[in-house]
Amino acid sequence: MMIMIIVLKPHVSEEDVKKVVNLAKNFGFDVNLSRGAEKTIVGIIGENVYERRENFEALDCVEEIIAVLKPFKLVSREFHPDDTIIDIDGVKIGGKHFEFFAGPCAVESMEQMDEEASFLSSLGVKILRGGAFKPRTSPYSFRGLGLEGLKILRKVGDKYGMKIISEMMSVDDFDIFEEYVDIIQIGARNMQNFRLLEKLGSSSKPIFLKRGFMSTIEEWLLAAEYLFHHGNEKVILCERGIRTFEKYTRNTLDMSAVPLVKILSHLPIVVDLSHSTGRRDLIPSLAKAVVAVGANGAMIEVHPNPEKALSDGQQSLNFAEFEETYKNSMKILKALEVTA
Amino acid sequence: MMIMIIVLKPHVSEEDVKKVVNLAKNFGFDVNLSRGAEKTIVGIIGENVYERRENFEALDCVEEIIAVLKPFKLVSREFHPDDTIIDIDGVKIGGKHFEFFAGPCAVESMEQMDEEASFLSSLGVKILRGGAFKPRTSPYSFRGLGLEGLKILRKVGDKYGMKIISEMMSVDDFDIFEEYVDIIQIGARNMQNFRLLEKLGSSSKPIFLKRGFMSTIEEWLLAAEYLFHHGNEKVILCERGIRTFEKYTRNTLDMSAVPLVKILSHLPIVVDLSHSTGRRDLIPSLAKAVVAVGANGAMIEVHPNPEKALSDGQQSLNFAEFEETYKNSMKILKALEVTA
Amino acid sequence: MMIMIIVLKPHVSEEDVKKVVNLAKNFGFDVNLSRGAEKTIVGIIGENVYERRENFEALDCVEEIIAVLKPFKLVSREFHPDDTIIDIDGVKIGGKHFEFFAGPCAVESMEQMDEEASFLSSLGVKILRGGAFKPRTSPYSFRGLGLEGLKILRKVGDKYGMKIISEMMSVDDFDIFEEYVDIIQIGARNMQNFRLLEKLGSSSKPIFLKRGFMSTIEEWLLAAEYLFHHGNEKVILCERGIRTFEKYTRNTLDMSAVPLVKILSHLPIVVDLSHSTGRRDLIPSLAKAVVAVGANGAMIEVHPNPEKALSDGQQSLNFAEFEETYKNSMKILKALEVTA
Amino acid sequence: MMIMIIVLKPHVSEEDVKKVVNLAKNFGFDVNLSRGAEKTIVGIIGENVYERRENFEALDCVEEIIAVLKPFKLVSREFHPDDTIIDIDGVKIGGKHFEFFAGPCAVESMEQMDEEASFLSSLGVKILRGGAFKPRTSPYSFRGLGLEGLKILRKVGDKYGMKIISEMMSVDDFDIFEEYVDIIQIGARNMQNFRLLEKLGSSSKPIFLKRGFMSTIEEWLLAAEYLFHHGNEKVILCERGIRTFEKYTRNTLDMSAVPLVKILSHLPIVVDLSHSTGRRDLIPSLAKAVVAVGANGAMIEVHPNPEKALSDGQQSLNFAEFEETYKNSMKILKALEVTA
Repeated sequence: MMIMIIVLKPHVSEEDVKKVVNLAKNFGFDVNLSRGAEKTIVGIIGENVYERRENFEALDCVEEIIAVLKPFKLVSREFHPDDTIIDIDGVKIGGKHFEFFAGPCAVESMEQMDEEASFLSSLGVKILRGGAFKPRTSPYSFRGLGLEGLKILRKVGDKYGMKIISEMMSVDDFDIFEEYVDIIQIGARNMQNFRLLEKLGSSSKPIFLKRGFMSTIEEWLLAAEYLFHHGNEKVILCERGIRTFEKYTRNTLDMSAVPLVKILSHLPIVVDLSHSTGRRDLIPSLAKAVVAVGANGAMIEVHPNPEKALSDGQQSLNFAEFEETYKNSMKILKALEVTA
Repeated sequence: MMIMIIVLKPHVSEEDVKKVVNLAKNFGFDVNLSRGAEKTIVGIIGENVYERRENFEALDCVEEIIAVLKPFKLVSREFHPDDTIIDIDGVKIGGKHFEFFAGPCAVESMEQMDEEASFLSSLGVKILRGGAFKPRTSPYSFRGLGLEGLKILRKVGDKYGMKIISEMMSVDDFDIFEEYVDIIQIGARNMQNFRLLEKLGSSSKPIFLKRGFMSTIEEWLLAAEYLFHHGNEKVILCERGIRTFEKYTRNTLDMSAVPLVKILSHLPIVVDLSHSTGRRDLIPSLAKAVVAVGANGAMIEVHPNPEKALSDGQQSLNFAEFEETYKNSMKILKALEVTA
Repeated sequence: MMIMIIVLKPHVSEEDVKKVVNLAKNFGFDVNLSRGAEKTIVGIIGENVYERRENFEALDCVEEIIAVLKPFKLVSREFHPDDTIIDIDGVKIGGKHFEFFAGPCAVESMEQMDEEASFLSSLGVKILRGGAFKPRTSPYSFRGLGLEGLKILRKVGDKYGMKIISEMMSVDDFDIFEEYVDIIQIGARNMQNFRLLEKLGSSSKPIFLKRGFMSTIEEWLLAAEYLFHHGNEKVILCERGIRTFEKYTRNTLDMSAVPLVKILSHLPIVVDLSHSTGRRDLIPSLAKAVVAVGANGAMIEVHPNPEKALSDGQQSLNFAEFEETYKNSMKILKALEVTA
Repeated sequence: MMIMIIVLKPHVSEEDVKKVVNLAKNFGFDVNLSRGAEKTIVGIIGENVYERRENFEALDCVEEIIAVLKPFKLVSREFHPDDTIIDIDGVKIGGKHFEFFAGPCAVESMEQMDEEASFLSSLGVKILRGGAFKPRTSPYSFRGLGLEGLKILRKVGDKYGMKIISEMMSVDDFDIFEEYVDIIQIGARNMQNFRLLEKLGSSSKPIFLKRGFMSTIEEWLLAAEYLFHHGNEKVILCERGIRTFEKYTRNTLDMSAVPLVKILSHLPIVVDLSHSTGRRDLIPSLAKAVVAVGANGAMIEVHPNPEKALSDGQQSLNFAEFEETYKNSMKILKALEVTA
């Protein structure tokens, strides 16, 4: 049940008011009318008022539609009060659980990935990340190994008992992602690629949905609603920084999004620490904050030799830095009694 | 030839400086070294320095890379000083020409489109717009007629001698767009859908590339560079408003983008007046500004009955409003001696 | 009469609803109650509901206050339908009038100002600008000639029959501004310096109120409301660009603000073309747009020799550039039949 | 020693290059010239290059000035590697110390403040906040008790052995703030009120400098530089949220600013948790993050009865909520071995 509130222009006629009321009733909605000396306000109440917003906006007598309360439904906590916990063969994401999603920006070779997975799994990290298909702002940048990259990822994942996650850029690649990875990532630039959302609604895999860097939390939850609506309820949200006027960081990490999403939705939420700031010198401090604020995980780019990484070296930790970050996080989790 | 400027951390060792210089030389770049009392700055000069930016960012001794000058090339005016003018069977876009791109947000029926095309062509409008595949923020909104919509558009375009433009959302639809439309639109949310850009690089049609509402002008020109790089040099840029903190308008129309793009690039630039503000009461004034500022065209949503439009009625002009806007524009074009 | 809309939390008790209703009634407001299956919405109607917003926000049962419609009143067009036209000894600002506010960023010397005023007045410009007290982001920059600058400005203004405008930074300078200038400018950084607004409420001079570069149009109109509320109804609004993520321009000129302010308010609105972009190569094109869009004036920095200006040379036109801009503007004004 | 990098336009003449070089030499700067096939870049090196930036920007042959490295100096860590620790009669702010700044948004009465101070001091809080002069966006809102408020604050501060902090809005109030408070707050809207900064440069009290909600970190540090430059080196920085497009929170808390400021500057940094989000339901989670990330303190609005607060009740914790937040923070501080 949602409410849409419509403000009519000053001094509208009786006829105009009726037009609005009748339109609402034709759609099967309830109407609540509020008339002030100068303003008339109409509350429209019904299951799917959101779908009809534009029909009301187009009326000449409408000054403004100031709110549709919570246009998302399936993903909202009001609709589903308990935390969603996604279980991937025993690796649990959501609720009181915390997991690291670690690995290099891009899969570069079997040797590199083996070294990564060996190190990360020895620490206790259970989820390995690695880009095989890379979205790049410039046509002149390195674009990833493609299918070959996914195969490497799968192989080392199996060898070290880790779950693997990688970004899918296009519906064309659906079948190979279904075959090779454990979690499918939707990148920030594709958060509103509606065809991709629809297709992944039919996937059997959990979807790791990054927030667009200029998307509101509402739009992000609506993107998750797309996935639910098309059949996939295993969605992990990932805050990865938003675009603002500040220039010292690549993006501005919106830390408040974590407790806010916890209030609004039942879905797990993870923070991508590498993309949100673009600076490896900030990651160790911010990782502690991410753990303390109550997120369900942190994604961090780790590379055996960031200086030689084919991409994103400036935002990757080396092994020693990651190990320290990992250990500090465990300390805070322990103090706060969260299961890692 | 591009230059990338690298600032090293304070008090770096000789060895570190050499590391940077050698890396540059290995890539075949020229190097210019500038040493201050506290800071050392390295200028890297070469054809494709942009592709290697990340290799330098990853070095520990690098504090900051403060600029790669103009990472785009093929679309830049430095590279190609004359205006690109795209000629679609005699309809010219670019240079001193100005065209309207008018029509409804969504194709709804043959009757509606016939009424639109009849009216618009009688005024002198040569390009008809209409959405057949609609990207929607919510899974619960109207999504367009699909292929059926394109066929209607083609039919009325032919009947009234108008060129037609419509938005393509996915590579899956490439063949039908090639068959039915004259200009293929890439929507704001797909400006960095790199698979789509690559695919449309092989299209024979002009591409109407909307600026992402979260994209800098540099990123937008790099998206155009993708199209060029993959073989399509018929690109029309379209400013459609950017997301800011201001709440009275849906987006903030970045009018400065028009003269700025004219300085930076040889490509035509058009302004979408309906999406940039989301308010039909602002369009008549802003249309005059768009003509006066020197744009190559204006896209405006027009509907026989905006109150009954299936989408975007609040940002569509009715016929009388459009006619007045059209005539005012002609007046200014005449005063400024631009060919419409 | 204003309306404030309050959304209560899901499943609030009868008692909570009564608490809200009673609070409203105690303040003397009317109440309209709308109860949905899940949501209860309370409309509060009264003269000064804005003043009490926080009292409602603080209630535990309140989920959200989604709107106070138009928190400004005295400056709103609803309250005062006719255009305000400010008449300074025959120089008219507002309504259908258009004026240039031209001159250097900073007053540097009598010679410089004499040369400026001589040139500008010969073209027909009636209002001379010049900074005497300069706000500077860094403590290490040139800060203006102070009182000496105002005296120079007054002298050349009188000599050439021009009105003069200059920025006042602090209430300390009230008396000298009252004595020397014709229009007092409030800079963007001081738009919400409430002490300054209160003080200038008692001024006999028109106030030129620049929009803060990160202020919404609503906040800007509320700042004008401060001036009205404290007694000064001669307010000229000036859009000067807002801060966004775009980096090629210093700020993003919000051109839509012009028609929007015309709809919301009866006050005159001017555009500052120098600060809004920070680039002199964009001014000639944008000046045409400002004239065409229906603004009441344009502020442009002009300097006899921008290369030698003590500040803001990069955004100042030289005499030849200004003359061309001036003439193009007159052409458009003539075509649109506006009085210049 | 700072470096400014100047990019010249393509194909400039020898004469133009000399003009730039000579200008630099006249100011006493060192010059480093870098010539590529298409671009010429000039590095200008000297103590105060920042002051001369505009002189170079105004030259016609200059395309862009892409960087002045770190325009601030006195507040930078490069200049002063050790943490600044401010000691107010034994209460230490900075370095490894963490303090709460707690109290109501506005001082309302002696009874209210006594109740607050009694409660807060019993927990161990050492610094009491309370607004006496309130900046308000609307002229119709509650504006504080003024001097009477400061006197109340002083009295309860003395009674309970707490330091007191309050916001000063205007240079007019300098003397009474010097007399009554322990720490003078500069509000977000006044961060670039340069007259106020200059005046407080002569204060004997520590200054609590809030980041403007529209200010970059660079501008914020330059505002601190103003205070240093005018004689006051006891500056506490306070992040309080920046304005972005996100609407669910009043501002976006820029958590990255904490570690970033620690890298760039030696000054203490505190986070204002009430203003940064405007929502009391987010404060308990975010407080944990602020402690974990390494800030030197947290400012939180606390009110005995938020529902009856005269201002900002929606972002104030009640006593029980604050107590829990306080205790959780102590736990994390202990785990991380920070002195509270």
